Amino acid sequence: MIVPALNPRVLEIPGSLIREIAGKKRPSSLDLGLGEPTLMPTSTHLQAAMRDVEADGLRYTPNAGDPELRRAIATHYAYPGMAGEDAVCVTTGSQEAMYVAIKTLLDPARDELLVVEPAFPSYAKMARLEGVLVRGVAMDERDDFAFDPERILSAIGPRTKAVVICSPCNPTARVLSQDAADALVVALQRRGGDPVWLIHDEIYREQTYVDDAASLARLYPYTLVTNSVSKSNALTGLRLGWLLAPAPVTKAAIKAHAWITSCADTFAQRVALSIFRTPGALQEHASWYAAARTDVVDALDKSGLRFIAPEGSFYACVRLPAGVASLPAAHALAADEDVIAVPGIAFGPSFEGWLRLSWVGPMPRVIEGIERIAKWCRAAG
Amino acid sequence: MIVPALNPRVLEIPGSLIREIAGKKRPSSLDLGLGEPTLMPTSTHLQAAMRDVEADGLRYTPNAGDPELRRAIATHYAYPGMAGEDAVCVTTGSQEAMYVAIKTLLDPARDELLVVEPAFPSYAKMARLEGVLVRGVAMDERDDFAFDPERILSAIGPRTKAVVICSPCNPTARVLSQDAADALVVALQRRGGDPVWLIHDEIYREQTYVDDAASLARLYPYTLVTNSVSKSNALTGLRLGWLLAPAPVTKAAIKAHAWITSCADTFAQRVALSIFRTPGALQEHASWYAAARTDVVDALDKSGLRFIAPEGSFYACVRLPAGVASLPAAHALAADEDVIAVPGIAFGPSFEGWLRLSWVGPMPRVIEGIERIAKWCRAAG
Repeated sequence: MIVPALNPRVLEIPGSLIREIAGKKRPSSLDLGLGEPTLMPTSTHLQAAMRDVEADGLRYTPNAGDPELRRAIATHYAYPGMAGEDAVCVTTGSQEAMYVAIKTLLDPARDELLVVEPAFPSYAKMARLEGVLVRGVAMDERDDFAFDPERILSAIGPRTKAVVICSPCNPTARVLSQDAADALVVALQRRGGDPVWLIHDEIYREQTYVDDAASLARLYPYTLVTNSVSKSNALTGLRLGWLLAPAPVTKAAIKAHAWITSCADTFAQRVALSIFRTPGALQEHASWYAAARTDVVDALDKSGLRFIAPEGSFYACVRLPAGVASLPAAHALAADEDVIAVPGIAFGPSFEGWLRLSWVGPMPRVIEGIERIAKWCRAAG
Repeated sequence: MIVPALNPRVLEIPGSLIREIAGKKRPSSLDLGLGEPTLMPTSTHLQAAMRDVEADGLRYTPNAGDPELRRAIATHYAYPGMAGEDAVCVTTGSQEAMYVAIKTLLDPARDELLVVEPAFPSYAKMARLEGVLVRGVAMDERDDFAFDPERILSAIGPRTKAVVICSPCNPTARVLSQDAADALVVALQRRGGDPVWLIHDEIYREQTYVDDAASLARLYPYTLVTNSVSKSNALTGLRLGWLLAPAPVTKAAIKAHAWITSCADTFAQRVALSIFRTPGALQEHASWYAAARTDVVDALDKSGLRFIAPEGSFYACVRLPAGVASLPAAHALAADEDVIAVPGIAFGPSFEGWLRLSWVGPMPRVIEGIERIAKWCRAAG
């Protein structure tokens, strides 16, 4: 078999460091690498969907999604200019929502995507897959990677069409504050020329532990929002997400989506409809995360590690000793301490020297993992 | 709101003629436009999946899919060189499988896709979305659009990297015969230079009514196969498909798939696993289609219309009177006869003058629809 020449854009995408480390997991490992909830989903939503498909079968929905679900999503968030169903495209998880957003909004011949870093690697990989120029703008380590409007604004160049911001942030667990968002948006609105768009990845929205979290779509009309029920409702495997955007953008995004996946799974859409129809269901796991966060911060306080107190998401990040690189550290922790943690370098060069810990597992094991990392760092430091 | 300049590749994709006509449907309409089964899915597969997710939750699977499902698919088809799980990428329907196949295999800077026409419009639209050059090669109307290896071979040019063949065919309901496939493959193997790949869309495989249907993957090592449980098991809304390809191609395709949708829905994968674990389940609706086909051919025989006897799929195509264009005819049939049929022009210029009828609805209504079309044609001819 001759191995063929394939699309170089696909071949050149580097492998995932997160999966490289996840591959070191043993049955005994303390796993702080997980990027998904360990809670069980609420059965009533699954059962409601099952009743629907037993009665009606599993037919295609329109490409953009079940109109009732689109309306429910638009109404729930009620973002200015996006409160109608024509603002919503239901997708295969927020991953496809982000992919379609980048593919629709950016012209590979002309436009550049700016990614606020540290960042989940998917944004840059999606852009590269499309042949879209992509650049990162790093937040300041000395400020625990707080979202800094000045840094973002000064990184915007003549080709920058859109800026991706994940808040609450994977990996830093920082949240974009109202003040920072106001400063960013006011400056963007004062610029001349074509608007610079903001793509707000809100997937950790229901895991927010501060009161002044900003919703960019409430402040700035050139905002796209991606989200899903994956993290809020422990439904990562359901692959049900959505893109919220001004109607003309959504209309084009639906065209791209239609030829990529046709439509989202009808069963999954019925699950989501049950969630949106049930008051408070998007927040049904929120108190669990808030309680777990308190325990994690206590454990980190006691550990002696430098850490970033989580403002949102289900991650916490810790600083390795000066001069210790994160990828070999993560391998050593897996081999020597049986702890899985994600190396900061996976999220961009600005996060070198850090580890991302997730705290979704059983709390005694999370705490034991933190203690082992602290011990390892004391020996290495 | 300034409507932004978006990616021209997305904006330039034309709207769907199939949906334009579907939009004319009234509650009373005789709908011969449908592209999906009207049978109900077998409940046991859904219930098996429900038990699994109630017990285990809905977690991500690996990007490529549940290893057990990948093995089950590879083992079931047992295509030469593709009998291991590393040949399978589980996708969001066969739509994503085709999208990922085109994206992975073809370099937009260099390669051309050749589509055997008449063809479902998605292949060309996917290629255009990727900036990949695409050309159609029309089969011969005088031969009822039988797959003609000579026509396909003579259309292959220096840039042709892959040829898409849908057999059983949507729309023509023709099936690629063993003899035609042998002639095609022998000639491709005699060519020098880089291999020309075949992408076989097998989605109507379980609706085959002839004995000599060819499976290209059994004959030619440079074959990719896309398929799903959508048509075989009345599960269009489940969005569960797969790409089968030689392992090096699959490995690259999984990378693209990982950044587009992450992984397929875990519930849907459990449904598919139940189907592959149940002997004969992929064929559980086959006898219904075979019986319905007999009734449809009888009705078409009596109608006086020129038609192509279906060798596969759940379509039948009829010729409009000479000089009658298919799009206005379809609109007139919807308005005057309350019959929904898809205009041939939707499947390429070679199918102008034809209508595609689907016969998945209640048979008396299908027959009534055929009679009304025949009456309309007699008046128009």
